[in-house]
Amino acid sequence: MTISMYSASVPVFKNMLGNLSHFLDKAQAHAEAKKFDPQVLVDDRLAPDMLPLKKQVQIACDAVKNGLARLSGVEAPKFEDKENSLPELKERIRKTLDYVNSVPRDKVDGCEDKDITFPAGRDVTRTLKGEAYLLNVAFPNMFFHVTTAYAILRHNGVELGKGDYLVGNRA
Amino acid sequence: MTISMYSASVPVFKNMLGNLSHFLDKAQAHAEAKKFDPQVLVDDRLAPDMLPLKKQVQIACDAVKNGLARLSGVEAPKFEDKENSLPELKERIRKTLDYVNSVPRDKVDGCEDKDITFPAGRDVTRTLKGEAYLLNVAFPNMFFHVTTAYAILRHNGVELGKGDYLVGNRA
Repeated sequence: MTISMYSASVPVFKNMLGNLSHFLDKAQAHAEAKKFDPQVLVDDRLAPDMLPLKKQVQIACDAVKNGLARLSGVEAPKFEDKENSLPELKERIRKTLDYVNSVPRDKVDGCEDKDITFPAGRDVTRTLKGEAYLLNVAFPNMFFHVTTAYAILRHNGVELGKGDYLVGNRA
Repeated sequence: MTISMYSASVPVFKNMLGNLSHFLDKAQAHAEAKKFDPQVLVDDRLAPDMLPLKKQVQIACDAVKNGLARLSGVEAPKFEDKENSLPELKERIRKTLDYVNSVPRDKVDGCEDKDITFPAGRDVTRTLKGEAYLLNVAFPNMFFHVTTAYAILRHNGVELGKGDYLVGNRA
């Protein structure tokens, strides 16, 4: 018995993007309850040379859509990275999920040995097999940016807990 | 073609724990360069009701060893959670990696349909199939705590970048 590239990837991407969208709902509710401008959260970061919440959400979406596009060969939509509010960031997640849901299972299954070439810094690319790319590049990137978004919100007092991080995981 | 539970899990666990140990090396070097007590980092947290760095490292290790123990049926060592310095935390990671390396491939392969029962809060358990457990519980937990450790260190000025988060990923 073994597992398929589709079952190893798409449900995880969907869960984690759903959880990320849920974090933003809680962020919006927190700002409203405390009567502060949610833009503070959108622009906050954990260190001066780290990216703000809005970029964490954009890149989490890109880790999913570009990762899945490379694995499946199904072209992903391009986004202009102009989102600058919690509702706009939620919309980006929704559009990313629309893309994920549009990718047929048979385009992903079987890609474990396909060569995947991806950017790895300025003017540098790397090539990995599909399985290694999913597990060692796409997953770590997605989890990194989802967790960093969570950390920025928690640092600002948004009432999130581990249950929120795993909320989509009720399969 | 498909992928195996061993290839989907053990290399990822090893990479990410190796990267986490690398973060702690950079934390030690940063404290020495700036002449502050590294204990500040060991005890720091991003919010008053979040766990400090030492617990993030302990739980990242537990996500791996308990996850792999449930999947493989190979008993994992118990740790007393007494680590309270960067070298002690590195030693915990090393012992966890020793366990991971001791688990035979054939104990992990084939566990995708095995029922895995795990704690999900006080006096509550959940049961998932092996594949769903790895992808939706063990992985998210491990990545969460590794990334939160990274975030705590970055928030304190330790010179980490995305390359450090992915440093083990040179397969």
